[in-house]
Amino acid sequence: MIRAADLAARFNLEVRGDGETRVEGVGTLAGAGPGQLAFLANPKYRSQLAASSAGVVVMREADATGFERTALIARDPYAAFARIAVLFEPVPVHAPGIHPSSVVDASAHVAPDAHVGPFVSVGARSRIGSGAVVGPGCVIGDDCVVGAGSELVARVTLVTRVVLGQRVRVHPGAVLGAAGFGLAMDAGRWLNVPQLGGVRVGDDCEIGANTTIDRGAIEDTVLEEDVRLDNQIQIGHNVRIGAHTAMAGCSAVAGSAKIGRYCLIGGGAGVVGHLEICDKVVVTAMSLVTSSIREPGEYSSGTPLMDNRSWRKNAARFKQLDRIARRAGNVGQGHD
Amino acid sequence: MIRAADLAARFNLEVRGDGETRVEGVGTLAGAGPGQLAFLANPKYRSQLAASSAGVVVMREADATGFERTALIARDPYAAFARIAVLFEPVPVHAPGIHPSSVVDASAHVAPDAHVGPFVSVGARSRIGSGAVVGPGCVIGDDCVVGAGSELVARVTLVTRVVLGQRVRVHPGAVLGAAGFGLAMDAGRWLNVPQLGGVRVGDDCEIGANTTIDRGAIEDTVLEEDVRLDNQIQIGHNVRIGAHTAMAGCSAVAGSAKIGRYCLIGGGAGVVGHLEICDKVVVTAMSLVTSSIREPGEYSSGTPLMDNRSWRKNAARFKQLDRIARRAGNVGQGHD
Amino acid sequence: MIRAADLAARFNLEVRGDGETRVEGVGTLAGAGPGQLAFLANPKYRSQLAASSAGVVVMREADATGFERTALIARDPYAAFARIAVLFEPVPVHAPGIHPSSVVDASAHVAPDAHVGPFVSVGARSRIGSGAVVGPGCVIGDDCVVGAGSELVARVTLVTRVVLGQRVRVHPGAVLGAAGFGLAMDAGRWLNVPQLGGVRVGDDCEIGANTTIDRGAIEDTVLEEDVRLDNQIQIGHNVRIGAHTAMAGCSAVAGSAKIGRYCLIGGGAGVVGHLEICDKVVVTAMSLVTSSIREPGEYSSGTPLMDNRSWRKNAARFKQLDRIARRAGNVGQGHD
Repeated sequence: MIRAADLAARFNLEVRGDGETRVEGVGTLAGAGPGQLAFLANPKYRSQLAASSAGVVVMREADATGFERTALIARDPYAAFARIAVLFEPVPVHAPGIHPSSVVDASAHVAPDAHVGPFVSVGARSRIGSGAVVGPGCVIGDDCVVGAGSELVARVTLVTRVVLGQRVRVHPGAVLGAAGFGLAMDAGRWLNVPQLGGVRVGDDCEIGANTTIDRGAIEDTVLEEDVRLDNQIQIGHNVRIGAHTAMAGCSAVAGSAKIGRYCLIGGGAGVVGHLEICDKVVVTAMSLVTSSIREPGEYSSGTPLMDNRSWRKNAARFKQLDRIARRAGNVGQGHD
Repeated sequence: MIRAADLAARFNLEVRGDGETRVEGVGTLAGAGPGQLAFLANPKYRSQLAASSAGVVVMREADATGFERTALIARDPYAAFARIAVLFEPVPVHAPGIHPSSVVDASAHVAPDAHVGPFVSVGARSRIGSGAVVGPGCVIGDDCVVGAGSELVARVTLVTRVVLGQRVRVHPGAVLGAAGFGLAMDAGRWLNVPQLGGVRVGDDCEIGANTTIDRGAIEDTVLEEDVRLDNQIQIGHNVRIGAHTAMAGCSAVAGSAKIGRYCLIGGGAGVVGHLEICDKVVVTAMSLVTSSIREPGEYSSGTPLMDNRSWRKNAARFKQLDRIARRAGNVGQGHD
Repeated sequence: MIRAADLAARFNLEVRGDGETRVEGVGTLAGAGPGQLAFLANPKYRSQLAASSAGVVVMREADATGFERTALIARDPYAAFARIAVLFEPVPVHAPGIHPSSVVDASAHVAPDAHVGPFVSVGARSRIGSGAVVGPGCVIGDDCVVGAGSELVARVTLVTRVVLGQRVRVHPGAVLGAAGFGLAMDAGRWLNVPQLGGVRVGDDCEIGANTTIDRGAIEDTVLEEDVRLDNQIQIGHNVRIGAHTAMAGCSAVAGSAKIGRYCLIGGGAGVVGHLEICDKVVVTAMSLVTSSIREPGEYSSGTPLMDNRSWRKNAARFKQLDRIARRAGNVGQGHD
């Protein structure tokens, strides 16, 4: 339980209304009760404000006019809310030490204040840093590093030569450092190309559940600092992802592609191998990037959703598009 | 071994031909032998009927005319087959009790007749219901519930605040309750938004292998009863999926989208966040839903498959489509 | 450390320059130093050759003209490099025997020279062949076979009735043999159709991290020999994939589809169920195959990437395409 005025002081916000209002949790604008704090960031939800029972609402100054209960004024209400909500997050306790069921190679090093849960195996020469948490069922192979303050939530696999920076969080089922898909066709059969590199993950990165990041063929696959990967993302060998880039669920990057800083890759989007995307590029959901992008901006591919009957009719015409274009008269040669 | 007449009696079917025919297993129409039962549901396979060696065939009355061996007449042969096949399914035995290798928190409760396999960890305050099965390598975090008769096949992770109803089946590698992808950009760096909600899964749901369902940001992510998710599906935080909806492999729903009841979402299809799909909507494979759907029916996006040379020619013209349309004369402003 | 001349002799290559040059590792053309061997296969990288510090470069004869340092001449430099690089791959040692933490059913059989790591469970009647490696955290259910020389890297699940041939490699998080997505709608509720088949995987197959292969409904799901699956691929029940076919990450094949030999399926591509693809078909990334393909060749669907503003304009016109086509004059009825 904390007073609105205390929250204002702690997070450098301005309080309007009754600073004595007590907050014992957070809620949505529509669902919060008098003891809860909510936020208004998206103007779309402004209409919910009047009916909200929230005891305190974090909002922009412009939205506060006429609001009669307690408000905390923030330039960025969503970020302010994120900081406040941390106070109400139940955080599981991770006692330092190695669970007796776990199997740690004699040449590995685990910091005394790190937590290693049950059913964990740690391979040769690997190191678990200070304050790190390795949850139940994780497998850490040879020559890996889990940086200080990093957390492998549960059932994470670091196959080999995976180096995580500090404060990296990896969600369950993620697999880092598996052998990349390197194949040479030889006399009618596939030959495996050894994957000798590793994976390097910068400080403050987050890697979602069941995401996979292959190790490099010769050099490393690299995530720079503060990269955020959602669930079920596939990162091929030797990819490099720039700092502060975020990728939504089910997107994928094929081998040796380089993605810039501060990019946003939409859900289910794909990036073909061996190309480059510059900084500050947005790729919308389920688009496919097939050549390098050299200008910041938003990019898309695909067609709009239609009722199936209309879609069939129009999609069939796509097969004739070149002919239609030529009939329609001079529109150039297929390049804008 | 069971007689055709007994099957008819047990499943309320009509027997044609020799009710004494003995069935000791099931097979496909093409592959079944005289001791096996097959079914004919899809008219496409009707031509296989004459050549089939199956001892008994489950079929519609209309297909039975002229069939000279033993038939079981059903209004819905596929459903009837499903019920019969259960008799021949080898079901692994799950003895009640907790495997000695498993680690169960002192505050957790496991029903005496539940099965907890090897290498399982169960967190604080979690409960495993009567007759439930928790297979090898599962990780159950804090404050989770596995309802009566539910089964976590193996290596399932319930991160935290995941509540499963009764008779829910979760396949290996699925991760429920991981922190949703909640990020706020703050002074050039990403800030994590605490994910305080949980996941609620209704009775009789099925969740496929390596599928991920994130926990809610403030309120819960919800699957109503009898929702069926195939493998490698991604469900974002605060999504709600209506009862009896089925989603095929690799489909994905972004945060806060609401999907109705009795929907069918095709393989690899995507649903953008913060929108609503009404009941009884079919979305075809690899289509992307970018705005709310308010009418039941079938919806699609994408273009037809072509040989690559034709595709390149036509796809290049897609970049000129607006110009082509204007050349072609008045067809409206891009909205049907 | 090995001499260039020894590599030439061992791998049947021709040495140009100083055969005494010593190689102690491999590198990229751009990154290798004097003690390292690099390769030049893709003409795109030819310009890097002059500036490379690599001690030895594997290349085609045509590229060697004017090269002044040591070259190894190969008809296929990439395949030759793959063979050489194996010499420099750190291979983890897997001592024979079963880790004491593992739980092996009394009716299972593990070859004396096989390795079973920690936290592994092996079910009834399953067999682990000679020289096989079962890494940490794997779950092997009932009636499975891991063929001689095969490797389950870590945290692999074989649910039931999964038979792997020899020298099969399965990467972490893969799930083979889960119950396929077989459902019948019955009186407004889904009914599970028992999945009685298994999975058969031929010799020399590779299965990527977090890939899922469902077991067959009645007969088996089959991968013929030397099939190569990348990460996060979904294979539905009763699919058959021909020998030497390779599928890139995040691609998916729905139930009962048959794919031929020597096919290449691009990343994120989808194949609808119950159809056939002949031998030697290439499907480009994120394309959807909706009907059978009977001619070898390359196939595609989708639209090119554009800046979002242009895309919106053109994509809106896709909804009018049939009308545009009719305006533009006679181009046929939507079929090429």
